[in-house]
Amino acid sequence: MVDVGPASFANAGPEEPWQRWREARPATTVLHLDTAAAGRSSITTLRAVASHAEREAVIGAYVAEADAGPVIEQGRADLASLLGLPAAGLAFAESASAARAALLAAWPVRPGDAVAVTPSEWGPNISAFADAGLRIEELAVHEDGTVDLAGLERLLADQPPAFVHLTHVASHRGLVQPVAAAARLCAAAGVPLWVDGAQAIGHADGAIGVDVWYGTSRKWLTGPRGVGMLAVAERWWDRLRIPDNPLGRGALAAGSSPVRMLESAESNVAGRVGLCSAVRDYLDLGPARVHNRLAEVGKLTRLALGDLPGWTVHGSPTAPSAITALLPDQGQDVARVRARLITEHGIVTTHASTLRAPGEMTRPALRISPHVDCTAADLAALRAAIEALS
Amino acid sequence: MVDVGPASFANAGPEEPWQRWREARPATTVLHLDTAAAGRSSITTLRAVASHAEREAVIGAYVAEADAGPVIEQGRADLASLLGLPAAGLAFAESASAARAALLAAWPVRPGDAVAVTPSEWGPNISAFADAGLRIEELAVHEDGTVDLAGLERLLADQPPAFVHLTHVASHRGLVQPVAAAARLCAAAGVPLWVDGAQAIGHADGAIGVDVWYGTSRKWLTGPRGVGMLAVAERWWDRLRIPDNPLGRGALAAGSSPVRMLESAESNVAGRVGLCSAVRDYLDLGPARVHNRLAEVGKLTRLALGDLPGWTVHGSPTAPSAITALLPDQGQDVARVRARLITEHGIVTTHASTLRAPGEMTRPALRISPHVDCTAADLAALRAAIEALS
Repeated sequence: MVDVGPASFANAGPEEPWQRWREARPATTVLHLDTAAAGRSSITTLRAVASHAEREAVIGAYVAEADAGPVIEQGRADLASLLGLPAAGLAFAESASAARAALLAAWPVRPGDAVAVTPSEWGPNISAFADAGLRIEELAVHEDGTVDLAGLERLLADQPPAFVHLTHVASHRGLVQPVAAAARLCAAAGVPLWVDGAQAIGHADGAIGVDVWYGTSRKWLTGPRGVGMLAVAERWWDRLRIPDNPLGRGALAAGSSPVRMLESAESNVAGRVGLCSAVRDYLDLGPARVHNRLAEVGKLTRLALGDLPGWTVHGSPTAPSAITALLPDQGQDVARVRARLITEHGIVTTHASTLRAPGEMTRPALRISPHVDCTAADLAALRAAIEALS
Repeated sequence: MVDVGPASFANAGPEEPWQRWREARPATTVLHLDTAAAGRSSITTLRAVASHAEREAVIGAYVAEADAGPVIEQGRADLASLLGLPAAGLAFAESASAARAALLAAWPVRPGDAVAVTPSEWGPNISAFADAGLRIEELAVHEDGTVDLAGLERLLADQPPAFVHLTHVASHRGLVQPVAAAARLCAAAGVPLWVDGAQAIGHADGAIGVDVWYGTSRKWLTGPRGVGMLAVAERWWDRLRIPDNPLGRGALAAGSSPVRMLESAESNVAGRVGLCSAVRDYLDLGPARVHNRLAEVGKLTRLALGDLPGWTVHGSPTAPSAITALLPDQGQDVARVRARLITEHGIVTTHASTLRAPGEMTRPALRISPHVDCTAADLAALRAAIEALS
């Protein structure tokens, strides 16, 4: 067991409704600033998972799954509506990377086809594209790392790639891509836009109009681990190459969509039930309100840490993302800083290696990613703890 | 919610230690004869899963995962020892089919290579082999469906396939392949033997000596859904084609094995913790004792149902498997029988379509798969219920 240091933040609660958000979760014994790794699930979500698992043991797993059908279909519809897509176009997977693998296997590309990405692209995505035989092309970007839309428009006209891929909200620093605007340009050019929404779902607006989307339950939606999602716009359904799965043919026969054939038949159903509960909580709170609050949390974090001696905030201080990256200016060992923050101060953050964004990271980063319940006192405690380690 | 009919089996408990096995689980409101779909988890296993998930919310998911490391490594070692393989050769996956997909992607085969299977092979395996470009060759079998070892030996000498694949315990009827004997012949010929152990782990002896193995948590081990396992014997590690996963390189650097690189980095960790708990329960009870009891349960089931009017038991009445298949002789609609058994009698079984074993099934089957706690009263109740539906 990791020895977790003392933390006492109970008296420094956030304002409503974020205090209620905090109280809906099990009391934490740490200062949790690690939502970009995995958010803290609510008691309601944890109970939904545990009680589905118990029902599996009581009445049989497949009877329980049939019973949970309406809950899961409501969650599917809720998630699809957030993307502006029909429910039939959304499938559950085991993780964002399992979703990406299913999409790459199903998409009509040939080896040598080009995929256009920004220099900030998530490393494992680039590796997966290269493994699939795709050629990686770099999109022009502005100084803050956002895609240059005029440049994108020219590329789409002059030398269209097989598809454009954007990571909506970057994992390794504060950076949000204008996916809705990019989607309009791609649609006009007839080039599909793929969006990695793993850090974006539950966090940022605007994955409307995309052709292919994938994401995960466990981060900003604060659903369970082991659940991912993918979605494909209806105009591409007929082009998908669906692997033969004799026992999954029922999904297609039921008249839903070929996308549903990409859903894993055997799965962590209890986790899917939990995700559907978490999505419901998020919709009840109001996506726009959550997104605005998370943008504010990111700005407050960068304000609190912007002049921290020995560290530099990576990227724009005003990026509308709750993710902040601190780059070590004095050769600090970030993995060790992250470990000491936990054991000596009870503060949970991430050591983000350069493999996350090999196109632009030259140093590892200390990643800070609070959720909506972050307070000024939390950020002051983090700052004091990092200073104390120097 | 499925309307579950009345069931009252509390007074007809099994003998020790199977009564204790039953009492270790949440009281069921049904007669659960569906372990081959998913077994009933113990309260200890359900609590292990739920408390890991709660710890994720309390101290952060990745801190909780690090804390659970020793539990997961013990479970890995326990599972590997059941297969006679080193712990480093075992990886967790999301399901047996995800495990099979990872193995097929990593194995050094070329399109057109042959895989030899029996006519009873599991349909989705055949589809996956065909999708991978493999040629399917049929192994000679005895009347009961077990592989003809003399025929296998001749095939290995005359026209060796790229690998032999056996489904250790069949899903669609009572049938257990002699995998240990087949493994010796394959080893002597230098041809790898793959074994689908999804229905075998926790159920039957003898996956010792195999080259490649995969299975699942949720059936006879009564672990959680959403967890699978794969294992590769050390002599093949250097031949595996490991996909590039920049963030997974740590596993390799840590000096474990290339097999560990096939483990999904992002996963249902709580489910893995639950599986490790279930494996511990199984080892405490004694694998040989459990296997003997399950073979006995299968024989008792076939004895109780062997002369049921309108139905025929598929396969040998003495197969050492707790799975029994009833074939409808009078055109009964098996899906409807299965549904009515649940709603009118509170008895949970499976409708097994012919797609499960397209090489030998010509009719769908009603599958009965009790666990160790099955009693004569349970089987009498099932028989009476099926008769009442006629």
